[in-house]
Formats: sequence, structure tokens, C-alpha cells
Amino acid sequence: MKIAMLAPIAWRTPPRHYGPWELVTSLLTEALVARGVDVTLFATQDSITSAKLDGVVPAPYSEDPSIDAKVWEFRHLAHLFGQADKFDLIHNQADFPAHAFSGLVDTPIVTTIHGFSSDRILPMYAPFQHRVHYVAISDSDRHPALRYAATIHHGIPLDDFTFDPVGSEDLLFFGRIHPDKGAKEAIAVARASGRALDLYGIVQDQGYYEREVAPANDGVTIRYHGAIGGAARIKALGSARALLHLINFDEPFGLSVIEAMASGTPVIATRRGSMPEVIDDGVTGFLVDTPKQALAAIERVGEIDRAGVRRAVAARFSVDRMADAYIALYREILGTA
Amino acid sequence: MKIAMLAPIAWRTPPRHYGPWELVTSLLTEALVARGVDVTLFATQDSITSAKLDGVVPAPYSEDPSIDAKVWEFRHLAHLFGQADKFDLIHNQADFPAHAFSGLVDTPIVTTIHGFSSDRILPMYAPFQHRVHYVAISDSDRHPALRYAATIHHGIPLDDFTFDPVGSEDLLFFGRIHPDKGAKEAIAVARASGRALDLYGIVQDQGYYEREVAPANDGVTIRYHGAIGGAARIKALGSARALLHLINFDEPFGLSVIEAMASGTPVIATRRGSMPEVIDDGVTGFLVDTPKQALAAIERVGEIDRAGVRRAVAARFSVDRMADAYIALYREILGTA
Repeated sequence: MKIAMLAPIAWRTPPRHYGPWELVTSLLTEALVARGVDVTLFATQDSITSAKLDGVVPAPYSEDPSIDAKVWEFRHLAHLFGQADKFDLIHNQADFPAHAFSGLVDTPIVTTIHGFSSDRILPMYAPFQHRVHYVAISDSDRHPALRYAATIHHGIPLDDFTFDPVGSEDLLFFGRIHPDKGAKEAIAVARASGRALDLYGIVQDQGYYEREVAPANDGVTIRYHGAIGGAARIKALGSARALLHLINFDEPFGLSVIEAMASGTPVIATRRGSMPEVIDDGVTGFLVDTPKQALAAIERVGEIDRAGVRRAVAARFSVDRMADAYIALYREILGTA
Repeated sequence: MKIAMLAPIAWRTPPRHYGPWELVTSLLTEALVARGVDVTLFATQDSITSAKLDGVVPAPYSEDPSIDAKVWEFRHLAHLFGQADKFDLIHNQADFPAHAFSGLVDTPIVTTIHGFSSDRILPMYAPFQHRVHYVAISDSDRHPALRYAATIHHGIPLDDFTFDPVGSEDLLFFGRIHPDKGAKEAIAVARASGRALDLYGIVQDQGYYEREVAPANDGVTIRYHGAIGGAARIKALGSARALLHLINFDEPFGLSVIEAMASGTPVIATRRGSMPEVIDDGVTGFLVDTPKQALAAIERVGEIDRAGVRRAVAARFSVDRMADAYIALYREILGTA
């Protein structure tokens, strides 16, 4: 089974800090290679993989301002689709542009839909659903107008996340600094609880950062640290009483939620989007509808067994389960199931 | 000869006011149809043509904010290239995205390069030059790294422009309100000359407009009118002493320059880009290097024979000449010359 894996080119695959689509692409690619699948990863040239790396894009456009996103996205697509017939299947992780080529190649295409930014992108999904096999990353993210081949939740390599059986008394925010992700709400609830809050993540909305985060950031009780990676990231995810995920949008999945859970940290999340699918209420965290409920949940965190939180990730969100589910889908499409 | 003509989707084809790429696409399409060529125009669905109109894009993205440019550009491309084999040749007027499909279809592709926005787009030109036939719109706009099939200057339908043998004492600016186009320089030179200046064009750079044009616009000697179309546009082009085209960039062609000339209005232009190719110095206008020279040229406009200005357009920039040149190129490519 020869798979062409098309990564986005916003970030390196795997990403250095932020880049959830590239992260999932990398995790799946490595897991497929480990299972003996012949994968060629089409990604930025600085990407790192145990698969064959093929690519024409010198650097990620979100990291290198000399890279024109539009120009290089077309080069990236042209490079893969010009050799589509070499592969049994193309797995597209890079949103809708690949669909424009689906009528011109015989190779079946799977698209993991990492999230609907808005209904405005539907014209590049609906007309191609008889040719492209769509995968939802949560049932909640399924668009009613589309037909899906499967829902496959993201998985993470549990061994990469150190279990912290104790955590700390402090609260944690992990995500883009953007109204969607609820940094403002996390700060308000943390203050009301009298607990300290550590915030990590790239600034995606500068105005929001300057209004809501920078003035609150006293370095003592509210501490914004920017983006982190590597060992510091692993440590931060585990050493918290709870992750506050008080989102203001229907989040399609939420990788940081399962990463925190893998580290033993329960999650207090707004009951929106995929959160009820990802969090077992009362077992791996709490689903809340209001700041008041979030505040109450912080005090109830002691009821949660941190080892049980990690076990839930092992059972439901391992990278092995994700890879197996994709391989089953590939086989079904190729008629080799 | 069955031609698929790919128009940009920023504006209607032909454009209502502004839209030079769409205008040239329309002029060529209509002239080809008049010569009996079988043309299918792929353009926004509100476009108007005597060719067959085919398109999936409901409205131009620069006119309708509900149209997501990226989504619909991919739909537009997918729609044409999915039926590429129905055509003998694809004429791409919509910049580099079409090149990404060139390796997947057998139909030859001609791309009219309407201008290099920057060297950053070269990665979507250079690697495709063995497959796509490039047309420069002026010799000055040829990029040294690229191979071209031809230079074909734009042409306009002379009959659409009323010859004004007298003009007026006033000066004219016609173009986007953007630093490139030199509205600021035109205002300064007009003031120094003691003559009134009429400015027409869309605001493309709002800050520049507010800094340079709005404060100068007294409605008496400096008069900014916004964009105009139809009969008012024709009238404005002819009723001037001279068009001030004091550009700050290497303009690849300059349609408004030949439109003014067709109306009898001489052009005073910065000696940059295609201007030395388009303007016959001392015959259809003056090429200048400094504001002082522009000022001197305004006083020398009386030396110019306005009928001769129009004759030059008839001889060198007619839509017939443009259509003939493209047909000759199509035949050469198809081996039917």
C-alpha cells in the first residue's frame, strides 16, 4: 500500500511549536511507517520523518515571510498531483485545495477535515464528495450537508507524555491566544478561584492579546509564557490542577485537551463542539456551561483520579488506534479490507 | 479551433468599472468570436459575452464579500480543468494558479502574464515554462528568467472611444488610487502648472487616499470623482489637455494610457516600465523623468496633433491587431499555422 500523505505547509511537519494539522499528519505518518506502510510525506523541505520526504516548498509560510503562501501552496499541490499515479491513495491533510485536482487523477483521495472554518468553504467540499472520501475528526464536526467515510478521532503517542500523578495547585491554559480559545474566560475564572494560571500558546489575535492577556499578565498569579515545545511543554501539561478550556467556538477536536489528559491533568471545558465526545464528564474532567460552573468544577477537581484520566487517553486516543482506523479505511477504499 | 478562455474572478468580465485583466479578457474573447473562433469563456456567472459562458462562480469576489476568493478560485479552476479535453487550447488570463494543472491535462495552455506582482511568484512560472506558453504584454515586462512565446500588446476597440479634437485646458488622472499610479505626483504637478486636475479611479490604498488625495480634493482645481464607467468614462478620457501618468512602478502595460490616446488625449508619463513602448515621445505624448520635466511637457502639449494621437492607437493598439496576434499564436502552438 503506497500512500502519498499531503501535509499543510503553514508549519513544519512535525511543527516546532504550534501546528495541529501538521502534528496529526506527522503522528499518523510515523505510525503508518512503523506498521510497514509505504508512505511518502509531501511537506515543507525542513520536515522530519521516517517516511520518504518529498517536497518543493523550501520553508513553512507561517515561519518564513519570504514564502508566499498562495504561490507555494499551488507548487506543493502541483508537485504531488503531477505524480499521483505512483500512489495507491492520497491522504490529504491540507484542507480543500487538493479537491480541485480530484477529477484529474485516478488515485483515490482521503481528506481529513480538520475543521470547518466556516460554511464559506463548503463549495469546495460538497461538489467533490462523490470523488473524495471525507473523514471527520469528531462526530460533532460533521457538516450536515456532507457525506463522510468515517469519524476518526486524533490520537497521540502516550509514551511522549509523562504522567504527573500530583499536578499542582495552579490552573493551566493551553492554546492560541484568540477569542475562540477563551484565554479571557480562563483568566476571569482563575482570578475568581484565587488560583494562579499559566497560559501557553502563540498569539493569533494581537488586539485580543493586548486587551485581555497582556494587562492581566502580572507574572505572579496570571503568567503568560508564549509558545513552548519539547520537555517544557510536557512538564507544563502535567503540572496543573486542571486545564481550563473555556472555548467560545465549536472546537472540532482539541489536541491540547487530550495531551493534558495524557499527562494526568483533568480538563474543565465548555460544553461545545467535540468537548462532550472527548471528555468523560466527572471522569476525565468536567463539562460546563457557565463561568460559575467552571469555578465550581475547579473545586471538584479533587474528585478526579489522575491515573484514570491518563487511562482514558490510552483507551480512546492513542496514536495506535488512530493509525489502525486509517489503515482500515484505506483498505476499505482500495477494496483490500 | 475550440478555445477555453479562463478569466480572473475578481471582477465581472467585462468589468463594471475597474478590472484590467477582465477587460482584456473580454475584448479578446469578443474579437475572437467575431472572427468565428469557438470560444467558451470561463468567468463569473454574471459575466456578459457573445462567447459561450461557462462558470460556477456566482459573483466576483472583489464585488461580493460573501464570495471567498480562495474557495472560488479553486472551484473555478477545477471546473475548467475537469473538462480540459473538450478544448484545443486553454488561454489562461488569471495568473499562475492554472499552471498547477498543466501536468495533468494534454490541452496546451497559453498564459497572458498581466504583470509580475513580484519575484515571489516566479516559482509558479519558471518550473512550468516547458509546458505553458507565456505571452508578455510588453517587452519591458518580460522577466529575464522566463521563456516567452510572444509579446502581444493589449488592444482596444477604437470605435468605443469618441475622438475629442479639442480636449480642454484641464489635466486628467486615470487609475487606481495607490502610490504606484502617482496620484500624488499628478496633484503636485497640476498645482505647479496652475491647471485643474480631474482624478478618476477606485481607491485601492485607503491610507494613501486619505493622506494624499482627500485633503487636496477641493472640488475646484483638484477634483476626485471616484470610479466611472460608460459614457461618462469615454467623455472624461477625451476632454483633457493631457493624461498625467506619473507612475512609481514599472507598469507592465497601462490600458488607460491607450484609452486616453484613442480619445485624442496626449499622455505625459514617467519613463518607466512599458511607457517607452506605448508612448511615441513627442507624437502621442511625452516621456519624463522628473516633475520639472512633466511641468514643461504640460506646456508643450500644444505641439501634439490630437488626431495623430488617435491614429497611433489605430495603427498599434487596435483590438483587431491583438486578436490576430493571438490567433497566429494559437495556430503556431496547434501546428495549424
